Formats: sequence, structure tokens, C-alpha cells
Amino acid sequence: MNRITHLFGIRYPVIQAGMIWCSGWELASAVSNAGGLGLIGSGSMSPDLLRTQIRKCRQATRKPFGVNVPLLYERNEEKIEILEEEGIRIVFTSAGNPVKYTPLLKKKGFTVVHVVANVKFARKCQEAGVDAIVAEGFEAGGHNGREETTTMVLIPQIREAVEVPLIAAGGIGSGKAMLAAFALGAEGVQIGSLFVATPESSAHPAFKQKILEVDDSGTMLSLKQLGPVRLLKNKFYEQVCRLELEGASPEELARLLGKGRARQGMLEGDLNEGELEIGQVAGMIRELKPAGEIVGEIMREFREAQKFLETI
Amino acid sequence: MNRITHLFGIRYPVIQAGMIWCSGWELASAVSNAGGLGLIGSGSMSPDLLRTQIRKCRQATRKPFGVNVPLLYERNEEKIEILEEEGIRIVFTSAGNPVKYTPLLKKKGFTVVHVVANVKFARKCQEAGVDAIVAEGFEAGGHNGREETTTMVLIPQIREAVEVPLIAAGGIGSGKAMLAAFALGAEGVQIGSLFVATPESSAHPAFKQKILEVDDSGTMLSLKQLGPVRLLKNKFYEQVCRLELEGASPEELARLLGKGRARQGMLEGDLNEGELEIGQVAGMIRELKPAGEIVGEIMREFREAQKFLETI
Repeated sequence: MNRITHLFGIRYPVIQAGMIWCSGWELASAVSNAGGLGLIGSGSMSPDLLRTQIRKCRQATRKPFGVNVPLLYERNEEKIEILEEEGIRIVFTSAGNPVKYTPLLKKKGFTVVHVVANVKFARKCQEAGVDAIVAEGFEAGGHNGREETTTMVLIPQIREAVEVPLIAAGGIGSGKAMLAAFALGAEGVQIGSLFVATPESSAHPAFKQKILEVDDSGTMLSLKQLGPVRLLKNKFYEQVCRLELEGASPEELARLLGKGRARQGMLEGDLNEGELEIGQVAGMIRELKPAGEIVGEIMREFREAQKFLETI
Repeated sequence: MNRITHLFGIRYPVIQAGMIWCSGWELASAVSNAGGLGLIGSGSMSPDLLRTQIRKCRQATRKPFGVNVPLLYERNEEKIEILEEEGIRIVFTSAGNPVKYTPLLKKKGFTVVHVVANVKFARKCQEAGVDAIVAEGFEAGGHNGREETTTMVLIPQIREAVEVPLIAAGGIGSGKAMLAAFALGAEGVQIGSLFVATPESSAHPAFKQKILEVDDSGTMLSLKQLGPVRLLKNKFYEQVCRLELEGASPEELARLLGKGRARQGMLEGDLNEGELEIGQVAGMIRELKPAGEIVGEIMREFREAQKFLETI
């Protein structure tokens, strides 16, 4: 279809975001089997667990899949070694400087994609030799950029600044939004939130259920002093807001956050005290659907919207 | 072309946002003469000045134009009387509850459009009897919604919730973005930032020049405790940030804001102490262009992008 499908050897330019606590081999293989690109989210995995997950994923699909390595966590070199040993060809890096690992990864022969939220880092990516860029807007769940630039404004600016193919992320809640991203200059989409609300995601059932209940005011970019992250509004989020209004220091916020909040929320299902990372698209999700069905539905909507736009 | 062009009797579904200090008769008539819909922004005008502006606009164009009435300012009833006396047919209300004036305006025979930033208010608009809705995303300049929902996520949700035609606002920086908005379900676009950077806008030349200089990190949603407003980052914006980080109360922020900051910045050109309202699209603006040229360019890009999408 285009440079993105060609790059990864996939049928549809629909990429499932590698997300901590939510995207293990079940989700990644389901998306890859449906013709998209599944990503194992290694951010919440030990190197050993990552190896097991890759092996299970390979058993579950003969299609290409990849691994996301968020650079803000530890033991990245160990993880990269495992990716090499296990024959992974596609790596998405995120939450860090693309200059740090791209040359090493390219030297080892990986197809490398890096996630950015501004034009400056998109240029850095291209200079560092990435094969594609994920441009992620303010509406995306989880860790997010400081500039708060939305997908609608980010994609055309990055499209103008670099030559490499772009994957739009943030706010992609349907095939219509995918087509909108293509109108803006993307050649693929990376989707997180929709894939959290699937039977195959490893998110806790209570978290999945909560996603179905929120409306268009259900999330907010939070914890900006520590590093912006989009959260589902819950008791923990309100505690953060209260501290911030009182003029809390980054240290006080870090103390409230503590260790293991994301695991507590997303994996263990503590909806009050846990950290629940999800995108604005959550407001559009009404039911859990199998991941493969979502891929098919997005492509159908994409084609329908394309036909509709021809008539206006 | 569609319900929006039909509703207003215009050629292109491109609406110029009514903006305080920036959109008087010169800008509105230039946009209307080019086939879009120009709006006089009455928020910064006394009733008398509004009357003069309407008369000058009528001299400058025989095409339809309208007036924006932001409900957060005073003397709205007086302004509505003037609109009636001066034969205005199209009113855009914003920054307030659509239930307050829509029934009165409809009774007087106006075509009424209200600006919203969430699904709840879109439903209220439809119940109140508006003819169309402007759905304005987080990326928009000036006053903004508390939910921080972006255009990419807002448009499809409002499209699903109501039947009336939708005009997308926030992040519309080119014909590509206009087509993206149409893919999401809009039938028109409202554009602010691009039209500030025109010879016809009444913004101070220094403010226009400043817009050309900012990049994709140039604006931020600010003053959230008083009422969110997207500002170009300058010394005043930094003062606000500092106070907020210290845990300032709404009263302290209101004291810093004081009276007349927006006039000081946008009309008088005080780039340090003034309030400079502009959207994220500012990062895409490289030169001043006549308003009519912008309308033509957007429609050309829209048609080109439409042709491109047919091929993918």
C-alpha cells in the first residue's frame, strides 16, 4: 500500500502501540495476524520476561511483529541483546533521545522507528538514521510531549520537516481519524487506547471496564513537572491535581507517585490508587472488541471515508 | 457544496473566526469577498463601534458576513439589538451557555451558530435550536475548553452525538487539515490564527511579526484556574507560569492579569506585558498573506489533498 506497509512487510499500515502492562504477546500476535503490526511493549518487562514474550509471540503468529523499547526505563542494552538473539527485526524506541540507540540498532540491522512529539526531535531522528517516525500528539495516552502539540498540528509540521515516512499517533479512534491523519501527511497510524480495550490486552479487566465508562472529559495530561503523562481521571489523578494547585515541588509529586503505581492501576486493577494511562480516544470506546476485529473495522471505515471524501 | 455553504449562502465552507482585537470589517469583508464567511469579532467592541464596523463591512462587500458575540463580555443585549437594526442575519455566539441567547436570537430570525468544546454543550446547542455548531479543539487560540479535547477526538464524538452541521475549529492550518476535519465529520472549518497574520487583520504589526517567528513550541494553554486561554509564550505568560508553580490562588492570577492585557498585547503590540492569543497553528505560519489569498489557497490544497487521497 505505501512506504510503511513495505517497510514492515505488513498488509495494513495499522500499528498497535507498545504499551506498558497492556501489550504482551497475545495482543501483538492478534494484531499481526490481522494484517497490522503488533508490538510487544517491553517497558514493563524484565529482560527475561521479554524473551519469553517474544518466543510466545512467534508461536502465535508467522507475521512480522516488533518490540517497543521506552528509553526512560532501565536495562535497555540487555533488552537490545535479547531482541538480537531472538531474531526480532523491528524496534520502536520512545521516551528518549533518538541519537542514543539508533546508530547501534541500525548497525545491528534492525528496522528502527522512534516516537517524537515535536519537530526538533523529528529532525534528530532523521539525522540519526531511523527508518520511520511516529509523531505523537497531545491526545495520546501515557507519556507525552512537553509542547502539547496536537496530532492535527504536529503531523503537517513534521511532514514538512523530514523525508522519512510518518506514523501518526494520538487521537486515532477510527478509520476516519486514520484517513484524517493520511490527509495531514501520515502513511500509517499507531493506535494505543483502542487496543487496551480488547480481550487480548493484558490490562486488568476492571481497567478495561472503566475505559468503557468514561466520556470526552475522562482523561487529562498530568504530572507535568515530572514528565507529562495522560491519565484517566481517578482518585490518584485528583491527588496529583490537589498537590499541584498547592504549588507542590517535583520532589513532593515524585513522593506521591512512588513506585509501581502504573502496575497497581493497569495490571492489578486498583482504579482508585493506581495510575491509569489512556488516551483521549477512551471517550469513544463503548465495548471491548477482539484486536483483529478492530484492525478490520478501521480499514473498512478508512475505505468508506475515502469513498465519501471523493463525493464532496 | 454542503449544508454549511447552503446555510450561509457562501461559496466555500471556510469561516474566519471572530476574534477580539483582530477581526474588524477589513478582515471580515476580505474573507467574504473571497467566498468564505467573514465574522466581525464584537468581543472587543463597544456597541457603537460594532455598529460602525457593520456599516463599513457592508460598504466593503455585498457577500454575506456575520458577527461573533462572545458571551463572557458585557452588553450582549445591546449588541443583539444593533445586529437586528443593522440587518445582520448570521450570529456566532461563544464562550458561554448556548441556552442563554439562542431562543431569543432564533425568535428574531437570526441564523445562529454556537461554539463548543465538549459533547455535553453540543447536545445543549442542538436542543436550544442552533443552526450549526463550531466544535473547537484544544489547539485553538484564545479562550478554550476545560476538557482539553483535541479537534481530532472532538469532531467525531460531536458528529455522533448531534444532527446539526459541524464546523471544525482549532488546528486548521491548511487545506489538508480542512480535509482531515471533513474526514472526521465536519462540513466546514473556522480558522483564526491564519487570518490574524494578514494585512487586513487589526492585530498590531509587532504581534503579526511575532507569529511568524514562533515554532511548534510557541503557544501554551494557560490561566486554567481563571478560564483556559491559549497564549503565545512571552514574558506575561512566564509570569503566569511562575505564579501557578508557586500555588497562586485564582485571585492572585486575576490580579496579575488585571484589565486590558489582551488589548495591550494584540492591539497595541506590547509583546512583553501584553496577552497574545493565538492557536498552535502559529508554528506553521511563515509569512503574512492577504486574507482572500488564504481562502483560495486553502481550497486549492483541499482539492489537491482530496485527489491525493483517492490514489491511496
